[in-house]
Amino acid sequence: MTFLLAHLGPTGTYAESAAIAWATHLKHQTQEEVCLLPCASIAQTLRMAAEQQVDFAVVPVENSIEGSVTVTLDTLWQLDSLRVQQALVLPISHALLSCAPTLQYVQTVYSHPQALAQCQGWLEKNLPTVQLVPANSTTEALQFLSTDETVAAIASQRAAELYNLPVLVHPINDHPDNCTRFWVLSLKPLSVGSHTSLAFSLPANVPGALVKPLQLFAKRGINLSRIESRPTKRSLGEYVFFIDFESSIAMDSVRSVLEELQNCTETLKVFGSYNISFVDSTKT
Amino acid sequence: MTFLLAHLGPTGTYAESAAIAWATHLKHQTQEEVCLLPCASIAQTLRMAAEQQVDFAVVPVENSIEGSVTVTLDTLWQLDSLRVQQALVLPISHALLSCAPTLQYVQTVYSHPQALAQCQGWLEKNLPTVQLVPANSTTEALQFLSTDETVAAIASQRAAELYNLPVLVHPINDHPDNCTRFWVLSLKPLSVGSHTSLAFSLPANVPGALVKPLQLFAKRGINLSRIESRPTKRSLGEYVFFIDFESSIAMDSVRSVLEELQNCTETLKVFGSYNISFVDSTKT
Repeated sequence: MTFLLAHLGPTGTYAESAAIAWATHLKHQTQEEVCLLPCASIAQTLRMAAEQQVDFAVVPVENSIEGSVTVTLDTLWQLDSLRVQQALVLPISHALLSCAPTLQYVQTVYSHPQALAQCQGWLEKNLPTVQLVPANSTTEALQFLSTDETVAAIASQRAAELYNLPVLVHPINDHPDNCTRFWVLSLKPLSVGSHTSLAFSLPANVPGALVKPLQLFAKRGINLSRIESRPTKRSLGEYVFFIDFESSIAMDSVRSVLEELQNCTETLKVFGSYNISFVDSTKT
Repeated sequence: MTFLLAHLGPTGTYAESAAIAWATHLKHQTQEEVCLLPCASIAQTLRMAAEQQVDFAVVPVENSIEGSVTVTLDTLWQLDSLRVQQALVLPISHALLSCAPTLQYVQTVYSHPQALAQCQGWLEKNLPTVQLVPANSTTEALQFLSTDETVAAIASQRAAELYNLPVLVHPINDHPDNCTRFWVLSLKPLSVGSHTSLAFSLPANVPGALVKPLQLFAKRGINLSRIESRPTKRSLGEYVFFIDFESSIAMDSVRSVLEELQNCTETLKVFGSYNISFVDSTKT
């Protein structure tokens, strides 16, 4: 059999690098073939897995500089069927790609808004007068580069190799510890790992409603590693709360919290209990 | 004297509508003139107030559909000197602006990524094959409209009037309750209002560090209306926590929490205690 694996495309994105790392692991574990399928958006990537058109979806969930990838959280809350099987942490190192002989030629820089934000300091210092143009992915704008010496794009070194484009400067990200956490999701049942992620909504218009769920974690000493509010999209001030904690759902204390959470939340969804692995980006 | 008020420009943005509402209130209160200053970015708007080049900055902090405006939170955490004087809630109603005689002519739609996201369902249903192009603001792309019948942009009805452009369809946002919360900030000291917002970072690598601050609020029954993690930009898993609660800092219980928070956080910043008013967008 062949495993199908969906990721945000086109070829050359950081999401593809994470997908390659998971494909390599999967091949090694199962001795089966793995085929990668680039998708047009994160929402589409997730829907492909939810509708059983692929076996796995690999999507970014959080960047160390720019924070949550909110479309991932919102779509998972709606889909309700996918479970996190594994987290992958990928180091992000941005390069400035251009056919310009020197920086002085560059007048316009294209990239995904997150990549532009992650290089903001470098751009202000080295290219203070250029026009910054947002694109739908780090690789989308590369098509303009070969014909125009005044244009540059921010993407990975891997994208430069794939599309045969020159790297003018590397690295250009403001923070050297830039990395992105990806989730590998599938329709398989909950697994058991060292980290757990869940989300819940609260009964509307009940004052003090968030106190109770937080008390459940606090009184058992379970440390929340991340907590994030996302709007329910009904009215301002109504939220879904996304929570990560560094404990396995196999622990008795976590099981008790989950049981009691049922009583003080409106809807509770456990996304998964999973392990985290770190990707060596030089091998992808 | 004349008050100077900075906001995200150019003329015709929703931020300008919020700024006009505040200017009207200020004129009424003080009988002084108020002059609006459109800025190129949210970060620049805030810096203008922090550097005393203007008296007030009006910036978006949260949308009911798309969630937090993260650049506002991150910049306020860095600046450390501005205090929230007032919150303004503005209803958001998007229109499709174009010189095309009918929808069938439209091949490309420009807008700010948040506006494109807020009309995603309408676009998929009514313009399934168009190309969506991100722009830096809802008004930035309007310049292309007058010369090309295949181009449309998503902006406010007010922008259509200001730039003398036809409205093809209105409203087109997927959620009728779409609104954005703005903060009015200045260098003035903390005021006292019904809502309080603060942020804190935690000592690094201390397991269970977030439990303690949350326990302080929980044991006094203070309900957090919003809690949000933002990366410290040092390494993945280190966060600044932004918290809103529906209590005034004049309350004894809140004062006690603030004192005790000093002992279990690394850095604690109180952004303000303020009231919320709702803007009638038909008057701006």
